[in-house]
Amino acid sequence: MRVLGVDPGLTRCGIGVVEGPPAAPVLVAAELVRTPREDALELRLDALHRAVAGAIARYRPDAVAVERVLFSSNVRSAMATGQAAGVALLAAAQAGVPVTPYSPNDVKFTVAGHGGADKDEVGRMVAMQLRLSAVPRPADVADALAIALTHLARARMGAVGEAGAPAASARAGGGSRGWEAVLDNPHLRVAGGTAPPRRTT
Amino acid sequence: MRVLGVDPGLTRCGIGVVEGPPAAPVLVAAELVRTPREDALELRLDALHRAVAGAIARYRPDAVAVERVLFSSNVRSAMATGQAAGVALLAAAQAGVPVTPYSPNDVKFTVAGHGGADKDEVGRMVAMQLRLSAVPRPADVADALAIALTHLARARMGAVGEAGAPAASARAGGGSRGWEAVLDNPHLRVAGGTAPPRRTT
Repeated sequence: MRVLGVDPGLTRCGIGVVEGPPAAPVLVAAELVRTPREDALELRLDALHRAVAGAIARYRPDAVAVERVLFSSNVRSAMATGQAAGVALLAAAQAGVPVTPYSPNDVKFTVAGHGGADKDEVGRMVAMQLRLSAVPRPADVADALAIALTHLARARMGAVGEAGAPAASARAGGGSRGWEAVLDNPHLRVAGGTAPPRRTT
Repeated sequence: MRVLGVDPGLTRCGIGVVEGPPAAPVLVAAELVRTPREDALELRLDALHRAVAGAIARYRPDAVAVERVLFSSNVRSAMATGQAAGVALLAAAQAGVPVTPYSPNDVKFTVAGHGGADKDEVGRMVAMQLRLSAVPRPADVADALAIALTHLARARMGAVGEAGAPAASARAGGGSRGWEAVLDNPHLRVAGGTAPPRRTT
């Protein structure tokens, strides 16, 4: 199973792609999308939408996972981040790929084992799980990989496709596959090293 | 000048199209877009995006005006409305049409003359300005028309295209035109009655 994770943001948006099995996930790609602060909001949303849609087309994930935006003390920034998340959800829906939101606590708990993990700890756990020689930088990219790893782990636990995103799953024709189905994919038996590209067309 | 106004919302989104001159605007179209509450967020954003993009393609406005979402006591609903607004901004940017956000107070002040106007008063003023025999229903549609009328009035005052949406204007190649340019359009001399369709292609 290949998962594309999005750490949404207008100024900096992390995109991370991992491929299972959950016990030995591999890094497929990591990107940082930036849009200029001085641009109008609609142009920034347009640029971000193109970037996320482009990544989905390029990496052909089985599922997309997006961090759910909670309200911080900075309400204005939370709204911009929420709109960025909305555009990522839209791009996934347009591509017919099932998408699941995860709260920051879900991600910290799944990747680091406790909801109080800080960014450094999450980054270290991402590097360890993907067997990388260094923590991915910047933090937005490490977070996007953590979100993707969260979905991969939840898929193994069978939580995805039930409580996850039922409508999107139904629409995508098969939708977010359970772990049993994933075992049929020979690509996913590759543990460690670089995952082969999905398709070259 | 033809303006498409959007009163953003996921459950109910109003779209209203008016055409100038500001002193005698006419109603071109009014639509209500609904997405089912039981659908997943990404599918609702997708449906809304298609509806707004479709309306822009159909009515070919010179400008789009979107109500800016402020934070109410219901934070969850404000985020959903903000994401709906983001998708409307995105659709305008993708179509290359300049888009301007207006706060609810901007709209009330411009249409009703004071920022404390309630929905009923805004609806009555919309009906009066467009010379309609009844207040447009539901309120989302009246609000969308009020937002479009606000942009039309501000365009006359020369405020649009300066503080409005400079980046979008630049991108759209000419962008939000000043009132002087609009006088050259013979369609806009039609005061009262139904405005002719822009183009039939």
